[in-house]
Amino acid sequence: MTTLRGPVLIVGTGLLGTSIALACRRAGIDALLSDLAPEHVRTASGLGAGRPVAPDDSPQLVVVAVPPDHLGASVTRALLETDAVVTDVGSVKTRPLGEVAAAVGAEQLVRYVGSHPMAGSERSGPLAASAALFDGRPWAVTAHATSGVEATALVEALAAVCGAAVVRLTPEEHDQAVARTSHLPHLLSVLMAGQLAEAPGAHLALSGQGVRDVTRVAGSDPVLWQQIVEANADAVLAQLGQVRVRLDDLMAAIGAGRRGDLGALLDRGVAGTLAIPGKHGGPVRATASVFVSVPDHPGELARLFADAGASKVNIEDVHIDHDPARDTGLVELLVAEGSAEQLATSLESRGWVTHR
Amino acid sequence: MTTLRGPVLIVGTGLLGTSIALACRRAGIDALLSDLAPEHVRTASGLGAGRPVAPDDSPQLVVVAVPPDHLGASVTRALLETDAVVTDVGSVKTRPLGEVAAAVGAEQLVRYVGSHPMAGSERSGPLAASAALFDGRPWAVTAHATSGVEATALVEALAAVCGAAVVRLTPEEHDQAVARTSHLPHLLSVLMAGQLAEAPGAHLALSGQGVRDVTRVAGSDPVLWQQIVEANADAVLAQLGQVRVRLDDLMAAIGAGRRGDLGALLDRGVAGTLAIPGKHGGPVRATASVFVSVPDHPGELARLFADAGASKVNIEDVHIDHDPARDTGLVELLVAEGSAEQLATSLESRGWVTHR
Repeated sequence: MTTLRGPVLIVGTGLLGTSIALACRRAGIDALLSDLAPEHVRTASGLGAGRPVAPDDSPQLVVVAVPPDHLGASVTRALLETDAVVTDVGSVKTRPLGEVAAAVGAEQLVRYVGSHPMAGSERSGPLAASAALFDGRPWAVTAHATSGVEATALVEALAAVCGAAVVRLTPEEHDQAVARTSHLPHLLSVLMAGQLAEAPGAHLALSGQGVRDVTRVAGSDPVLWQQIVEANADAVLAQLGQVRVRLDDLMAAIGAGRRGDLGALLDRGVAGTLAIPGKHGGPVRATASVFVSVPDHPGELARLFADAGASKVNIEDVHIDHDPARDTGLVELLVAEGSAEQLATSLESRGWVTHR
Repeated sequence: MTTLRGPVLIVGTGLLGTSIALACRRAGIDALLSDLAPEHVRTASGLGAGRPVAPDDSPQLVVVAVPPDHLGASVTRALLETDAVVTDVGSVKTRPLGEVAAAVGAEQLVRYVGSHPMAGSERSGPLAASAALFDGRPWAVTAHATSGVEATALVEALAAVCGAAVVRLTPEEHDQAVARTSHLPHLLSVLMAGQLAEAPGAHLALSGQGVRDVTRVAGSDPVLWQQIVEANADAVLAQLGQVRVRLDDLMAAIGAGRRGDLGALLDRGVAGTLAIPGKHGGPVRATASVFVSVPDHPGELARLFADAGASKVNIEDVHIDHDPARDTGLVELLVAEGSAEQLATSLESRGWVTHR
């Protein structure tokens, strides 16, 4: 396996770039920092993410972590100005590859392998960075037809240094995958949230956990998402077109009262939720919910989880649904199906009001 | 205020009916039980939810808690066979009211006031019931033009006995509200999940928290949802039609590369997420996330929440994102924006790896 010994040059010291630099430093690898905004480099450097790049530095690997609009140009520049392997961490892979391939020769292109860590973007900028950002996250590595084996191995080594799990895909596969599993859910969430923007307040008072879940991602940075969607326009349009056909089917089934057709669409949705890989990539495990009423004060959640821990049942997931009228929350604890009874009984014996 | 002294006759001893009966019993009010399935009555009765109804019983209030398809007929029968006030707890209000109004006289109709508690339906049947099911949940009470003031007050008293927060709406307002805040998000979640049903496994490996959030509700009981959607077909079709127009706008904007139009749609989504009432019905508070890596073993969440509790910061919400590759989970703690630093520092000092 190719060893990542550094130095690693980070181009763009925002959330992702600075987090990668911090992960390199954690592994004892030198990180060199570069950004159009000198204050970002100073901030990242001050966080211990490395030092500003100097003219005579000779990086082993360049990581381009700039906004989608600037990926192609920035990767091209890195290939022409260094002898290093070059990767990027953008959300879309085909379009930047095309731009790079049009601008450099085959001898440079062999050194470029795109990648895409699936890590959060709720916040941005170097101050939000962390060496732990990629811990256990999927990290797509997208070798292309002309990329070198050594280059691919070096990018996979970077993902490993960051604690991520490598998923190998071609650039085309990647873009179709994220169109389906990231860009489409984002845009449907946006369309749903848009219907709330002009809703009367009394209607919104009936909002439950369902609509909150569906619309959560629609609150993300619209400027970033505009660039992502545009950069993956073809694959996104293909997904939206399929949804539009199904939406027409759905409206026709409801309008004509065709119960079987409506049922088939609802069944297909259930099948889709079961297709998402479960915990640790294994099959989805059947879970059951235990609901607990919890006073909405600091420390009460701690008391609940301490009592839940005493029951020896592993909590698979948690949702908190805040009381619209009073200072209590309803906490939903999801556990393996056979363990719900044990957890509920244990919590009841400790004075919690539960139901399932 | 009209006093709910009982007895309360529950027609349909599933999850909702039995939970209401248990809440009545908790308040010392007699509950009478009825169901087409005698074993459901026996189960509910065995849980302490009341006794089977007898021919000479004279209920003060009848609560109809049967599937959407049977609401109209069941409410009609209750109005004709008793002198009681009658309510139902169905997810749709206009269509059953129309069926009832067509089948009874004005002197009966005055005694009917529909209602709709916004409580979970992830599980069903009397065994899943709990007196705490409605604690702090919104409970829509939908008086109509010819319903009596006393009848409305009695139904609101039932909601209070169940610990719920009354939201007053006309039947038409209610159906438009749930079409927008419940049925539309459900159907868009179903359309999204449907796109996963046939996706290649390698694509699904890139699934993050976003797509999981968006598709969560699509896993709910398709038979129940088929009846709900059909019963509210007009309002649902109006919402779907609006979304279809926006979807066409979105596809046109992406297809033509019209950045401003795409940005406006994304901005509208952000505005919609901010329109959902915040905790306790107040304005949405700005929150910040602290991510913590947590070993995936019983007791570790308890340790985390104990340590978080020691920081004196109130946790607003929690999400657990399980590691696809290893036995750790990434826990996202949402706290008021100004408190994230305090929480992260406190957790770091106790040995947790955090980032924001």
